[in-house]
Amino acid sequence: MKTLWQHCHVASMANGSYSIIEDAAIVTSGGRIDWIGPRGSLPDIGEASPVDLGGAWVTPGLVDCHTHTVFGGNRSGEFEQRLQGVSYAEIAAQGGGIASTVRATRAASEDELYASALRRVRALMRDGVTTLEIKSGYGLDLENERKMLKVARRLGETLPLTVRATCLAAHALPPEYKDRSDDYIAHICEVMLPALAAEGLVDAVDAFCEYLAFSPEQVERVFIKAQELGLPVKLHAEQLSSLAGSSLAARYHGLSADHLEFMTEDDCIAMAAAGTVAVLLPGAFYYLRETQLPPMDALRKHGVKIAIASDLNPGTSPALSLRLMLNMACTLFRMTPEEALAGVTTHAATALGLGDSHGTLEVGKVADFVAWDIERPADLAYWLGGELDKRVVRHGVELTD
Amino acid sequence: MKTLWQHCHVASMANGSYSIIEDAAIVTSGGRIDWIGPRGSLPDIGEASPVDLGGAWVTPGLVDCHTHTVFGGNRSGEFEQRLQGVSYAEIAAQGGGIASTVRATRAASEDELYASALRRVRALMRDGVTTLEIKSGYGLDLENERKMLKVARRLGETLPLTVRATCLAAHALPPEYKDRSDDYIAHICEVMLPALAAEGLVDAVDAFCEYLAFSPEQVERVFIKAQELGLPVKLHAEQLSSLAGSSLAARYHGLSADHLEFMTEDDCIAMAAAGTVAVLLPGAFYYLRETQLPPMDALRKHGVKIAIASDLNPGTSPALSLRLMLNMACTLFRMTPEEALAGVTTHAATALGLGDSHGTLEVGKVADFVAWDIERPADLAYWLGGELDKRVVRHGVELTD
Ligand SMILES: [Zn+2]
Ligand SMILES: [Zn+2]
Repeated sequence: MKTLWQHCHVASMANGSYSIIEDAAIVTSGGRIDWIGPRGSLPDIGEASPVDLGGAWVTPGLVDCHTHTVFGGNRSGEFEQRLQGVSYAEIAAQGGGIASTVRATRAASEDELYASALRRVRALMRDGVTTLEIKSGYGLDLENERKMLKVARRLGETLPLTVRATCLAAHALPPEYKDRSDDYIAHICEVMLPALAAEGLVDAVDAFCEYLAFSPEQVERVFIKAQELGLPVKLHAEQLSSLAGSSLAARYHGLSADHLEFMTEDDCIAMAAAGTVAVLLPGAFYYLRETQLPPMDALRKHGVKIAIASDLNPGTSPALSLRLMLNMACTLFRMTPEEALAGVTTHAATALGLGDSHGTLEVGKVADFVAWDIERPADLAYWLGGELDKRVVRHGVELTD
Repeated sequence: MKTLWQHCHVASMANGSYSIIEDAAIVTSGGRIDWIGPRGSLPDIGEASPVDLGGAWVTPGLVDCHTHTVFGGNRSGEFEQRLQGVSYAEIAAQGGGIASTVRATRAASEDELYASALRRVRALMRDGVTTLEIKSGYGLDLENERKMLKVARRLGETLPLTVRATCLAAHALPPEYKDRSDDYIAHICEVMLPALAAEGLVDAVDAFCEYLAFSPEQVERVFIKAQELGLPVKLHAEQLSSLAGSSLAARYHGLSADHLEFMTEDDCIAMAAAGTVAVLLPGAFYYLRETQLPPMDALRKHGVKIAIASDLNPGTSPALSLRLMLNMACTLFRMTPEEALAGVTTHAATALGLGDSHGTLEVGKVADFVAWDIERPADLAYWLGGELDKRVVRHGVELTD
């Protein structure tokens, strides 16, 4: 059965621009887009049930392409301590920081992790998110990384949401490998990745390339193993220093390199050539009061595709809203609302390897879209916080609360 | 009939601190708090209908003490132009900026203003806001200021929300008074304020004291008239430059001075002595990428009460979430979560002249509170954007969606 969605304007985001269709019609069937265009050009489509969208602006469903949504506990206690004047060193000495999240995540059952992640995912979905990436990386051993990835899979099975699961075992050094980071990398490559991939729990492989995490050489070993396993790679790179991790990701045809405040123009050239998406994370930039801006001019000059994500994580970006990240991309990084919207639709889909099926409203693509009760597309970036009135359609079916 | 709220912890915010009561009970009747304390100390209260709050953390209902929620149109088009590189001068030459909001507000009917404000107020209420200040200031003549204030009153009558209406006729110079600002001030004092006050539409009088708005001398004329009419005053002061407007507000026993990035230590001393609340607006600070921070140390040293508000307005803070302002107060101004929460409860109530009845959970006060499904009070400032699960009680009655 076909559905005819009408009385709306569309920002299809084809080619990374608004690509506006005023007074548009969308025909969907079987969860896909059969036809989209100006209502006046609608061909004879046979029988179809009509839906009146009341003059709304329709965009692709939003894609949050970088999150650490599954974790135990939270770090609001530390957040408060820091603002009371306790130093990072003291907090670390108390076992705080990422170590506390690893402990809480290991201690939590799969059901507990699912329940706490579910609340956060529902918050993201209230912004019209229909596709979500979730990384492991707080388990740091086979059993607990598996537990996290299983929770990610379960969220995708139980919610009207497309979930991509990324193995980030190389996120931090687990306590049992203290001072033996090469051994941990070997364990990831020889034991963890092969097992988790064989269980079908991994859609992509990520790592944290930074002086306080893993070196480019260690990351490359992980990438080589991912390649052997036929899995695409991504990388946390250039967040705190310049290690050319983003060029390394490009060399391995990475889907994306993420953070990137300290990337160089050479990194931009390498990423553009490889089609590796630059995923910018303004929530972490804001939360850490970072002052080094990502090189927007160089990214634009070389035509690197730019995505925006929440980086939802308990330490540096406890962000429950992707739409707020649009505003932060504009306000803090001086992106235009159009660039920012492309960053949470078409380019974000590409950063997940879903560019052929998701992220724009075009014939043959999945019918995931949001009908926003707004005056113009720029409203999505303009309003600061809160929730905008909307209707969400996934796989051609309107979601109800 | 009494209600017994239990299975909860309370942060009562008495004396401006968390004032935590673990395993608390709250007894309400007639919309007021009859008793509050540890459940183990609950006296015999006779018959009462019990409500299980499921282990939630209870805080006072949030108070947003500075908003410009009623306006016509929005300025997302300008927001987009600015990010596309169009200069402020060009936008002003096109009739943009506050002038465009004045035009749109004057052109809108009372019903249209009500409908658009209603959506924004509902967004604020989703954060647990139970008391809201709304300023006029986009009408700038008697008829249109009256229209705005009537919309504010109507929002208070139709929603489960306490609304305080502030006359901000001295917000900007209307076009018909170009180059005659003293004449406009005289018109405000001789015609507008007396008429609007006589109609019962004004709870307080505000002005914008800045080199691009009105001088301290002009503001003082407005304050003298307010005093004659028995109305309390507030002031937009020290946002862009140091004019000692906050000291002026203190001299007139102002309820609050607001913005304050450029205030001096002398201003702090004057405000502390007068009990004038410092209302900080981190949303505008963020949106304008201001770098001059309000003088937190001096404010604390002299014991000035600090409130936080959304400043919801179409130009410099289109903020639809007061809870996001808690995070911004902590992240940008380095307030503690406890200070920030006091800033949207007890001190915000004081900034509205409601300190005796609202803003803390104590015997005799209005039973407006929020039961948050969180781990600790700091969570309210820690989570960035999105909506937290909660139940809202106003005047002793739980609200339903
Ligand atoms: Zn990350
Ligand atoms: Zn204001």
